[in-house]
Amino acid sequence: MSQTLHPWAPSVDDPYLGSMNYLNQIAIAYPEAVSLAAGRPDDRFFDWSESRAMLDVFSDWYAQRHGLELARVHTVWGQYGKTKGVICENIAEMLEVDEGFRVDPDAILVTVGAQEGMALLVLGMCDPSSDVIITSDPSYVGMIGAAKLHGVEVVTIGRTETGPDLDELVAALSRVAAGGKRCRLVYEIPDFHNPTGAQMTRSERLELLALAERHNFLIVEDNPYGLFAYEAEVAPTIKSLDEHARVIYLGSFAKTLFPGLRMGYLIADQRVAGEPGFPLAEALSRVKSMITVNTSPLLQAMAGGLLVSSGHSLRRYVADRVDIYHAKRDALLGALEREIGAHPHLRERVSWTKPMGGFFLTVSTPFLFDDAAVQTAARDFGVIVCPMSMFRLDGKPEHRIRLSFSYADETALATGAQRLAAYLASAVS
Amino acid sequence: MSQTLHPWAPSVDDPYLGSMNYLNQIAIAYPEAVSLAAGRPDDRFFDWSESRAMLDVFSDWYAQRHGLELARVHTVWGQYGKTKGVICENIAEMLEVDEGFRVDPDAILVTVGAQEGMALLVLGMCDPSSDVIITSDPSYVGMIGAAKLHGVEVVTIGRTETGPDLDELVAALSRVAAGGKRCRLVYEIPDFHNPTGAQMTRSERLELLALAERHNFLIVEDNPYGLFAYEAEVAPTIKSLDEHARVIYLGSFAKTLFPGLRMGYLIADQRVAGEPGFPLAEALSRVKSMITVNTSPLLQAMAGGLLVSSGHSLRRYVADRVDIYHAKRDALLGALEREIGAHPHLRERVSWTKPMGGFFLTVSTPFLFDDAAVQTAARDFGVIVCPMSMFRLDGKPEHRIRLSFSYADETALATGAQRLAAYLASAVS
Repeated sequence: MSQTLHPWAPSVDDPYLGSMNYLNQIAIAYPEAVSLAAGRPDDRFFDWSESRAMLDVFSDWYAQRHGLELARVHTVWGQYGKTKGVICENIAEMLEVDEGFRVDPDAILVTVGAQEGMALLVLGMCDPSSDVIITSDPSYVGMIGAAKLHGVEVVTIGRTETGPDLDELVAALSRVAAGGKRCRLVYEIPDFHNPTGAQMTRSERLELLALAERHNFLIVEDNPYGLFAYEAEVAPTIKSLDEHARVIYLGSFAKTLFPGLRMGYLIADQRVAGEPGFPLAEALSRVKSMITVNTSPLLQAMAGGLLVSSGHSLRRYVADRVDIYHAKRDALLGALEREIGAHPHLRERVSWTKPMGGFFLTVSTPFLFDDAAVQTAARDFGVIVCPMSMFRLDGKPEHRIRLSFSYADETALATGAQRLAAYLASAVS
Repeated sequence: MSQTLHPWAPSVDDPYLGSMNYLNQIAIAYPEAVSLAAGRPDDRFFDWSESRAMLDVFSDWYAQRHGLELARVHTVWGQYGKTKGVICENIAEMLEVDEGFRVDPDAILVTVGAQEGMALLVLGMCDPSSDVIITSDPSYVGMIGAAKLHGVEVVTIGRTETGPDLDELVAALSRVAAGGKRCRLVYEIPDFHNPTGAQMTRSERLELLALAERHNFLIVEDNPYGLFAYEAEVAPTIKSLDEHARVIYLGSFAKTLFPGLRMGYLIADQRVAGEPGFPLAEALSRVKSMITVNTSPLLQAMAGGLLVSSGHSLRRYVADRVDIYHAKRDALLGALEREIGAHPHLRERVSWTKPMGGFFLTVSTPFLFDDAAVQTAARDFGVIVCPMSMFRLDGKPEHRIRLSFSYADETALATGAQRLAAYLASAVS
């Protein structure tokens, strides 16, 4: 090819977009290594026959609700469909049952995974010339990656043990305004944050809402892990505390149902364009019509069937798997205690968090855990972990790694912890 | 909400993004009207039970090909998957069987409909500050809509009876260069173009390829209708004539299989980043990872099963439906002949095209067919048609409308033609 142009848009070269590839390369290079890196759900929760049966369940429900013949309903699953989706009512009912808040189904947009929701928010809400997104750092890669593709500036703030540092947020808002830009969105995973596993307190949620009102920004509450709580006390979602429509909520079925559905949703119930106006989700559906047109109605019907058959309670539907992830968390915590404890010189110098839910915990190391450390741990000790640098906008190494207990089975968790301890013992002399 | 910001990014307000809504509103306002506007496939081609059976067909194929146990394959459909997709080999085989060209499966990226492919090309290939997309006008809305969301300038050129006006293309390339920008992509539907139904000649295809080489741009060949050819002579795809990797090809399963799959693919086999380098599709998969992560493997398995069971020939698979669409085209042409012929004063003043394939034909009217005409035809004569203005970047009325014969049954086609003739007879005095 005699192309002399740079072969693609410059944003594609951003190293941030390739950070996940690095871990894949490590996994391919060291296939015998045990991975505590993968944040995917446990394979055992995908039930093939159930998903097919759910199509029939939802077809019946939809036919009855909309007064349609079954044959007509089947064409709905096969055709182009409403951009906003065909299970918005079901999602609204689920939110009322599980989270205790009411949402107008018209304010819900079904997306191709929560990731599409992030892309829609970047493209639909942000003018790259004037708008900025703020997120705490380290952060899940999806929102930042989408922002980079569209050329939207991302400003990062530090984190406390529980959530974004709100003093730093206030300072960042001032800096952004002084620079002639405005903060449009503040992105956060308040429940069992990826990558830290932390959970924001109730008072932090209320303070963030107050800041949104005072400084005129919207909060993007990304909540893929909220139902995976392992201790009694659970804070309410920010959306359920949201009295002034300051929150756009991103939901995901990847962890509650299964990732291969590629299905999520967003709630944007902000009334716009005067009275009566319409919900912001309507404007975002115009953006979606130029990205994916609509989310597969066939897959929506599968998800809808699971909602209907569980009485519109995902909380009930996932109860068994919450117990399993809870046990896995405890298994990893126990193994870390045992294995790191077996190396006396590590005991005082290596610590880890006990997450109240979700898929992740973090281990603090007495040295900067860089890419070379990842490589050594995989090659010489047979364990793959995520360095915290992967989740930092600047990519700089930290004294922390992320361990995941969602995918590996209990044997692998024990082996992984043992190998990690052996690596740390050798690295910390 | 006390939001004083403009509630979304300015690009969302572009009237172009809402053009499809106008027709929906007309359809809702006049539910008794017969529609010759909908370009969707015939409902009868979605076979519910077949799609489910195909999952088993593909699971078996994939298990054998990759030496995996069936239970393991099922987890592949349920989990996060390769961003590029799990049916790339099958698509490559289909292209060889049906179109006679060989593509490295690594140069194929499975997308959430062809629309996602357009969004990936805009975001992944175009720097809004310097890059321009050129397309003939009128044009399908998807590429332009995606470009508008990302702020990429679209330059339009006129069309001949068969395809883009290549003299105008050369002039536009000069103007773009003189303005300090560069043309990155030229977008076209060479086969049975939406909205005009036209087909580029072989020599036009070769000339476009030569221009791409000389002026250093890439051609985006969007080919949703190519297999729906009703006459013997069919031009080869531009991709099959492409000796210098100047073509990015967009494929769609929406018309060959069914739209509810939301599945398409792109071929980007340009080798980039030196030797051996990698195919451009690899770079575009990085973009996709931040838009939809990956296309549902479960749906890919359904599509894969249909490919496997048809001997990897979509051409064979769609043979029956090609006959049906062919008959529908003839039914609409016959009805126009009969009904417009019944009004002597229309005979000389109204003409229409006879498309060699696809879903659309155009009718030329002696007056500008504007939104008021759409409304009158729907309200007073009970027929809904697409004004050509819907497909123009500037939205200006033309003396043409687009009629679709894909969705309506033969009775509706006859009634629609009769009503359209009655409307035209009254409008042309």
